[in-house]
Amino acid sequence: MISKNMAKALLGGSKIRKMFEEGNRLKQIYGPENVFDFSIGNPDLEPPVEVKEALKEIASADIPGIHGYMSNNGYETTRAAIAKKRSEESGLDIDASAVCMTVGAAAAMNDVLHSLLDPEDEVIVLAPYFMEYNGYIANHNGKVVICDTDEKFIPHVEDIAAKITDRTKAVIINSPNNPSGVVYSEQFLSELNSVLKSADHTIHVISDEPYIDLAYDGITVPCALKFIDNLIICFSWSKSLSLPGERIGYTLVSPKNEDYNDLTAAITISNRTLGSVNAPAIWQRVIEKSLYAKVDVSNYEKRRNMLYSNIVDAGFDAVKPQGALYIFMNTPEGLTDDEFADICHEENLLIVGGGSFAKPGYARLAFCVSETTIVNSRKAFFAVAEKLGIEHRSSL
Amino acid sequence: MISKNMAKALLGGSKIRKMFEEGNRLKQIYGPENVFDFSIGNPDLEPPVEVKEALKEIASADIPGIHGYMSNNGYETTRAAIAKKRSEESGLDIDASAVCMTVGAAAAMNDVLHSLLDPEDEVIVLAPYFMEYNGYIANHNGKVVICDTDEKFIPHVEDIAAKITDRTKAVIINSPNNPSGVVYSEQFLSELNSVLKSADHTIHVISDEPYIDLAYDGITVPCALKFIDNLIICFSWSKSLSLPGERIGYTLVSPKNEDYNDLTAAITISNRTLGSVNAPAIWQRVIEKSLYAKVDVSNYEKRRNMLYSNIVDAGFDAVKPQGALYIFMNTPEGLTDDEFADICHEENLLIVGGGSFAKPGYARLAFCVSETTIVNSRKAFFAVAEKLGIEHRSSL
Repeated sequence: MISKNMAKALLGGSKIRKMFEEGNRLKQIYGPENVFDFSIGNPDLEPPVEVKEALKEIASADIPGIHGYMSNNGYETTRAAIAKKRSEESGLDIDASAVCMTVGAAAAMNDVLHSLLDPEDEVIVLAPYFMEYNGYIANHNGKVVICDTDEKFIPHVEDIAAKITDRTKAVIINSPNNPSGVVYSEQFLSELNSVLKSADHTIHVISDEPYIDLAYDGITVPCALKFIDNLIICFSWSKSLSLPGERIGYTLVSPKNEDYNDLTAAITISNRTLGSVNAPAIWQRVIEKSLYAKVDVSNYEKRRNMLYSNIVDAGFDAVKPQGALYIFMNTPEGLTDDEFADICHEENLLIVGGGSFAKPGYARLAFCVSETTIVNSRKAFFAVAEKLGIEHRSSL
Repeated sequence: MISKNMAKALLGGSKIRKMFEEGNRLKQIYGPENVFDFSIGNPDLEPPVEVKEALKEIASADIPGIHGYMSNNGYETTRAAIAKKRSEESGLDIDASAVCMTVGAAAAMNDVLHSLLDPEDEVIVLAPYFMEYNGYIANHNGKVVICDTDEKFIPHVEDIAAKITDRTKAVIINSPNNPSGVVYSEQFLSELNSVLKSADHTIHVISDEPYIDLAYDGITVPCALKFIDNLIICFSWSKSLSLPGERIGYTLVSPKNEDYNDLTAAITISNRTLGSVNAPAIWQRVIEKSLYAKVDVSNYEKRRNMLYSNIVDAGFDAVKPQGALYIFMNTPEGLTDDEFADICHEENLLIVGGGSFAKPGYARLAFCVSETTIVNSRKAFFAVAEKLGIEHRSSL
């Protein structure tokens, strides 16, 4: 008696559960230090000290009404602080009305899509991409239109232009990208804006930015607000402040967005009717006090370097990720993703095939696992390479 | 370029905003002590001391990983504690797998409806009812079917039976009821179960229970789990622990529910894809430590008594509410709800017409306002009665 779509989802969901259970089974047999589970992207750093101090302070302060209802879009002061930070980054004049506080980026995406989509409206996504987007788009009766990227996972605007129809409502971008770690350039953002503005109706860009603070090698992630006019940002502090369990994020509509007034009002209504009502009060207050804090990004960078070396030293190919928490390595030629995953599995190496990101021929490995796991996994990568007759680039 | 449904909602939403703005306008002119705004049901008591102590303790404890991801349905220990409490209340053997932690009852309702509904499926609601249900049902492409209640707001099962079709997926019950404050009897729940079980397909009962701990005059709200087999509870601590801004609640599927396995799995997926992902981690831990605490219900009862006296002493009629935070008074005969609201408005008395709860001929007044406001409002009720030639039952 559950819905037909949900009955289908229950069948699909068991694959991920099986991988998780398989990891646990292997750990019991071989010991956790000998199982290399790179399948799950769970930010594992502690929140910065500013966050912990702000939480303690607010929890102890006993301010009346602190846990009560507020406007559905959140506290005015929190929203104003975020608007100020984004104004500083972009040079635009952004005020609190642009911001709606949400229970993380997934809720933010649902609020935005619910506000935008009529049935059968199309949303363009750039493969490889986080396939939870499919569920978010389906929730609001939209259609996913996949646009591929090149061998370095760079999208080309002419490919996006070719996918535009009169039902295209939005393009989702995600930079740094899950799963590829690629950061989209200023030039790409600028060209994307030109192409979309030349369409004969308004097409919004939804910029999903949970990884925006996780960039490596000293690079700065280009600020989408500077380059794209009809922009809606979906942000979460899950990674920037390592608070994934607490569900705190926001939507921000660019002041240059043609539908600014309608969108900011609609997103606030969606936030209420989809059930979040508002973002958790205490976390809005904590965020306001620790807005400029960041997790120790160098720690993630170190682990990226270690895992990347394992992969390329063993003889495999991968684009070195500039950000996010994943390496999207190439599946060796002549093998399907499933065949490669099976061979890795024999060495207790758990990876996710590129098909789970609409990009077969690759595998995603999350480097937010312990350094010990990464160090110990080196021999497994080398063993897989040997089995496949792939020549090492360095010694074990 | 926003969706057509949302464009409609933006027009509708302005009515509530206008009422809120009107309240503020009047307060500036006449002073806040002379404006009697009973329009908004905002729980205004502080959380019990157990909650505040648990929050302080957890915020100070510095437990590693405390703000990280967990299973989408929440912490096993929190869910087990809730299952234990509900087992004690019902005599059923409920385990943690029955429970999914959510960001409050609105998210819980959306998770459940998303799990149940195919397009055009019907959900029966009992008027008067909280009309946000319409939005929740529409989100998942369902249809609202309204079943009326009697002059004491008691539903009759034969009326519900007459509304059942082969597309009926669920009946929503809400006891204590918003807006009427009525508590549904054991007999009604038992008869409802019989009627639904005699249908030729499974019909679930969704019991929306945010007010279950707010009952007055020493009555106990009947436990729906004891009487209804195909039950799904949606609960929130917004009122029981006065935490509306923090968004913490749960769904619980009865172990007697025919679709138990599918439903518990589907609700967990819905919780993820609709964007909550999981309920805020810190509040799950606080709840586990203060599960048997309650706000000071006698304080609400006192204010109910004061406002009820104002209404009936002035000469108006109302069913005395047994629970929740509202009095649903009768609109005097010969007047529309709008005409009555306008006359009240002249005395700075702000109320919400019964049409906003699918039950014209009534007005909802929330008694979760300050005692001073209730005391000062007495003269306004008397003044309105005099204007309408209604005889007082008591002196001012």
